[in-house]
Amino acid sequence: MSLAMNKEQLADYMRQVFPQVHRDFVVDELEENVITMRLVVGEKHLRPGGTVSGPSMFGLADVSVYAIILARKGRKSLAVTTGCSMDFMRKPDGGKDMIARCTLLKLGKSLAVGDVLMYSDGSDKPVARATMTYSLPPEGSAAEAFG
Amino acid sequence: MSLAMNKEQLADYMRQVFPQVHRDFVVDELEENVITMRLVVGEKHLRPGGTVSGPSMFGLADVSVYAIILARKGRKSLAVTTGCSMDFMRKPDGGKDMIARCTLLKLGKSLAVGDVLMYSDGSDKPVARATMTYSLPPEGSAAEAFG
Amino acid sequence: MSLAMNKEQLADYMRQVFPQVHRDFVVDELEENVITMRLVVGEKHLRPGGTVSGPSMFGLADVSVYAIILARKGRKSLAVTTGCSMDFMRKPDGGKDMIARCTLLKLGKSLAVGDVLMYSDGSDKPVARATMTYSLPPEGSAAEAFG
Amino acid sequence: MSLAMNKEQLADYMRQVFPQVHRDFVVDELEENVITMRLVVGEKHLRPGGTVSGPSMFGLADVSVYAIILARKGRKSLAVTTGCSMDFMRKPDGGKDMIARCTLLKLGKSLAVGDVLMYSDGSDKPVARATMTYSLPPEGSAAEAFG
Repeated sequence: MSLAMNKEQLADYMRQVFPQVHRDFVVDELEENVITMRLVVGEKHLRPGGTVSGPSMFGLADVSVYAIILARKGRKSLAVTTGCSMDFMRKPDGGKDMIARCTLLKLGKSLAVGDVLMYSDGSDKPVARATMTYSLPPEGSAAEAFG
Repeated sequence: MSLAMNKEQLADYMRQVFPQVHRDFVVDELEENVITMRLVVGEKHLRPGGTVSGPSMFGLADVSVYAIILARKGRKSLAVTTGCSMDFMRKPDGGKDMIARCTLLKLGKSLAVGDVLMYSDGSDKPVARATMTYSLPPEGSAAEAFG
Repeated sequence: MSLAMNKEQLADYMRQVFPQVHRDFVVDELEENVITMRLVVGEKHLRPGGTVSGPSMFGLADVSVYAIILARKGRKSLAVTTGCSMDFMRKPDGGKDMIARCTLLKLGKSLAVGDVLMYSDGSDKPVARATMTYSLPPEGSAAEAFG
Repeated sequence: MSLAMNKEQLADYMRQVFPQVHRDFVVDELEENVITMRLVVGEKHLRPGGTVSGPSMFGLADVSVYAIILARKGRKSLAVTTGCSMDFMRKPDGGKDMIARCTLLKLGKSLAVGDVLMYSDGSDKPVARATMTYSLPPEGSAAEAFG
């Protein structure tokens, strides 16, 4: 299976569907099973002590997996987050962007699973890991999205 | 073991340590092993479609478990989130506050675990569940907080 | 929604579908949303040091959630484990049975979620917690079971 | 940091500490941060329908992360599983061994985190993923192992 959208088309589409937050997220790279997403870290993402907040990392992981599902399935596709597991392993550097490297492990008919490693830009020690699972309802069935 | 802070003392302390977000969170009830925390849902917590965003629910779960650890161990205690698992089960009602009922399952010397069920205010069907794990470093050892 | 099988019918059915392990598991109690399942701890469930093994606790959690789904949906229903999160909090007592108290948090059209607390028999301190998620494929569609 | 045991020393040590199950597990490869572990699938690991059971996959993931911690820290080291998250994505082939590729994401003073992808031997589609977290108590403090 190949990509339904390339990097520019995906970025365009995300501007439309995430008008409030699209400036926070930049698609750095896009391959068939891997996406690299950048969180442009600003004041609102920080916690006292100068670290990136947990909710910001959750959001980055969630957007990364959602974006690669969109890139694969195309812009009309529905996807609802149903599960997440995260481990926070090192203190993020609040002065750096956060980089998510996301691998799509499964893209089935009704379920998708993506794995995410997150790094402070320039470091190769992961700050956090996440797995996000998505329900993929049939088109035109938003009401069923949560299964 | 009993509480080191009552509900009012805990609310006071949260105002000091979370100056940016303390208005979002209200301690509704506090017992020895259970806390009920309210997310006062506003525009910034919403997603298109009028639902509460995933990062907002993550934040609510995280603050709930952190708050009951503080209430038990007192205000000087350190606690760093090390892990989280969440399941999103129903669509939250963006027009209602979100209520977290959090049970402290373990408060050990170095590790705490709390379980959280989240509801749209007035409903008894859980919107999401979360388990948060915290590392509890010895006092004066913030550098070791991530284990 | 009420139960499609009572406790005796459920136990009967489990004898048929789990011929190898049904002696390990006993349904202690069954309500509409809660099941109490006992792992009859024997030599094969133990680890050096006299504790119950992780795989045994995983199996207990998995069987508990599966059993309450069966009790609710009836014996022809399909259910495939798609996800699990567990926290191990205390050392189990290898000389005692292990008791799982399982609450069904969601039973949707295509997804079920159950929460499990596990105790060494006679203690009220949870040894472990687990959340299991199940995919519920439409009848006659086993090939799609993993979504 | 380098390995405290090579592949042969690790296999030797596992024979001593897991006398009951060491035949089930074979260390295929060992590098500084990555271990490949083989579950030699036999009758006892199977479920009706000819698939590998969930508890067997849990056990494989758990042993893999434990083994690489041992290889890094040496044979006297203590490590207690405190958490696990798993996603089951495809049906395993009960006629093939199961191969776990485990990456050690963090080996801190008190906490270790390992990520595991599991495959039916010969396939490159992951059957399951797991993250296991371990508490690493100081030497001579087994009683504190659960934190």
